[in-house]
Amino acid sequence: MYPDSLKNLIESFKLLPGIGEKTAERLAFYVLEMDEEKTDFFTDSIQEVKTKIHKCPICSNYTENDKCNICSDTLRNQDYLCVVEDPKSIYLFEKVGTYNGYYHVLDNLISPLDGINPEDIGLEKLIKRINDGNFKEIIIAVKPSIEGETTSLYIKKIMEGLNIKVTRIASGIPIGADMEYIDTMTLQRALADRKEIE
Amino acid sequence: MYPDSLKNLIESFKLLPGIGEKTAERLAFYVLEMDEEKTDFFTDSIQEVKTKIHKCPICSNYTENDKCNICSDTLRNQDYLCVVEDPKSIYLFEKVGTYNGYYHVLDNLISPLDGINPEDIGLEKLIKRINDGNFKEIIIAVKPSIEGETTSLYIKKIMEGLNIKVTRIASGIPIGADMEYIDTMTLQRALADRKEIE
Repeated sequence: MYPDSLKNLIESFKLLPGIGEKTAERLAFYVLEMDEEKTDFFTDSIQEVKTKIHKCPICSNYTENDKCNICSDTLRNQDYLCVVEDPKSIYLFEKVGTYNGYYHVLDNLISPLDGINPEDIGLEKLIKRINDGNFKEIIIAVKPSIEGETTSLYIKKIMEGLNIKVTRIASGIPIGADMEYIDTMTLQRALADRKEIE
Repeated sequence: MYPDSLKNLIESFKLLPGIGEKTAERLAFYVLEMDEEKTDFFTDSIQEVKTKIHKCPICSNYTENDKCNICSDTLRNQDYLCVVEDPKSIYLFEKVGTYNGYYHVLDNLISPLDGINPEDIGLEKLIKRINDGNFKEIIIAVKPSIEGETTSLYIKKIMEGLNIKVTRIASGIPIGADMEYIDTMTLQRALADRKEIE
């Protein structure tokens, strides 16, 4: 029904997360009517992220340079290393703006059911970095799921005896959330991790 | 904060309708992790719709050929011409599958407030086509809005004396809709256009 090239563009959009048939059609028709200048910017951007961006050899954040801009920044607090599950988490924390230490991106979270074992999440790189560095606290900031818990506990375990504090960001009720929509796991955690009001 | 090329890709996605900052970020991060084969398919598709697709010289539908596949199809019903506001509408009707006549895409709907007057919507092409053809009914299938109504009435008017039936697709309550969510304009129209139950 559609011309071939339009069909291909619809299929391309459907490769993206959360984009189904209808949205893909809507976007493809929109691209058809876009200025060539804008579509060129679009295709150039896609090509450039693939050619220019690679992982920082120190922390695995995305970068276009030898080292990422956070690892290159010697003014940050050398005491803290925040362990995250993907580069996107780094940008989330940077937007918050209250953390000023360094980051380390894991390759994966441990998930034996998916065949992802402790040796598959890039721990050697993390351990080497901790040994070479002078961190006082490792903050684990992965999502609160079975995989996240397993990974946190594993990292805590391999760091025993190193005399470095290992912490985990808090789980609980999101600020502003309606209690009735909170799942039982979260409620359970929020109750167990309750804090004295000071 | 983001590497430049990633920032550009986020901006590119934000050019698309219905895609805000958060979704654009999500899609851009996804593209970063896509196979090169898939991103190549994506960029090729964008370039190809811009280079290969043009408007059918007869009906203004999108096509990669001299004429679109509907205008080229001599087996369709020569009595009917359905006037639509954009090529996308053609695909919507073709999906429905009950209409077997030809189509004509207007350049625009009349909208004096936006400076779009009757001479700006490509009527000469439509009139020439009707004069050259042998249509028995012109079905106007544009959206039920002030612009759509104005355009319909205008087309009806310029076709007076041509001895061709001019019809308009029905407006009313969408099938399956909850009455309480229907706006007053639609209700008013549904009431005025009521049909005797046969």
